[in-house]
Amino acid sequence: MSERRRLSPDDRRAQLLDIAKSTVEHHGVSACTVERVAEHASVTSQLVHKYFGTRMSLLGALLEREDARYQSAIRAGLAEATSFEQVVRVFVAANLDLVSGASAIGQLRGVPELADRHADRWRGEGRGAERVLVQALAAEYVADRSTTEFVLRLGSAASIEAADIAGARSIPDRDAHIDRTVRFILAGVEALAAKRPADQREAALTS
Amino acid sequence: MSERRRLSPDDRRAQLLDIAKSTVEHHGVSACTVERVAEHASVTSQLVHKYFGTRMSLLGALLEREDARYQSAIRAGLAEATSFEQVVRVFVAANLDLVSGASAIGQLRGVPELADRHADRWRGEGRGAERVLVQALAAEYVADRSTTEFVLRLGSAASIEAADIAGARSIPDRDAHIDRTVRFILAGVEALAAKRPADQREAALTS
Repeated sequence: MSERRRLSPDDRRAQLLDIAKSTVEHHGVSACTVERVAEHASVTSQLVHKYFGTRMSLLGALLEREDARYQSAIRAGLAEATSFEQVVRVFVAANLDLVSGASAIGQLRGVPELADRHADRWRGEGRGAERVLVQALAAEYVADRSTTEFVLRLGSAASIEAADIAGARSIPDRDAHIDRTVRFILAGVEALAAKRPADQREAALTS
Repeated sequence: MSERRRLSPDDRRAQLLDIAKSTVEHHGVSACTVERVAEHASVTSQLVHKYFGTRMSLLGALLEREDARYQSAIRAGLAEATSFEQVVRVFVAANLDLVSGASAIGQLRGVPELADRHADRWRGEGRGAERVLVQALAAEYVADRSTTEFVLRLGSAASIEAADIAGARSIPDRDAHIDRTVRFILAGVEALAAKRPADQREAALTS
């Protein structure tokens, strides 16, 4: 019996995507071919085609899975965040990972054929993120609607720029890069929005 | 004698560009035709063609003049600036004016045929701006090269975002919009770079 009979269809699919992901991360999108994935999985190219169709469909399935996983990770991070600063940190880290050339998402989003569906998946997520940020800010700061929108838009632009800086070269210390980005944004927010007194803050968080 | 004989070629050229500018600002690029400019100048369309060639050449000449004027205004503003904050303010205001739909530059830069040469004219200016910002920051703050580049890039991204916010709708108070943008950026810079003591600051400015 060949090895491929040992895995369930779900496990085989996951295995092939794992191999594709690892190939993209270590050798780039162009190296991720059906033949290479098949070889590493010790199966035939025909089997990979049977699971995913074309090479582009395989790459699309991988990006879809990674997008979904990453969105779950963001939601988990937000669920654990107990301050505006921690919420900002989740988004700054997410921007960094999403554009990083070292991540499969960061590389696959640059494939023209996959870009539109990737952008669609993140568009809704972006609106959700905005709501979370608005609520987290309102819990700790006094700011009218215009100021809230203003600081969140400037903060987002700063976060994306910080991710682009990291994406363009290798940042020696990811955590330090996230930290200084968060500090820049927080200082900007606090320059324009007054911090609530501690008693009012609790009230806003529990309401 | 027709009116057109009363102006020197330089004055006629300037008059036609002034009329074109006013037309773009008040009625949009598409309203700015050779015929309309000629009519407002009480000259023939042939004369306008003689001065500028095609309609697109007229628009290109207008954008070139406005770019040069605006770059002179920026340099004058920078020559008068005596603090990092004032330098930042000059660039924030420039970004705002350049993308504003109310300005001739803001509208003409959106014309595909004119975009490349406009971008070329501002590319060198951008490099000069970076040098000025680095020097002005170093005169007042202690920051290593990496931190300097980081805060200036995040600050620039914030400034461009603020300009886009203003460009997308009418901002009731231009000065207040500039002011809050400068405050956001300055706070971010000061979160990451230490302010020099006053005596060291003077030394840096006069060296």
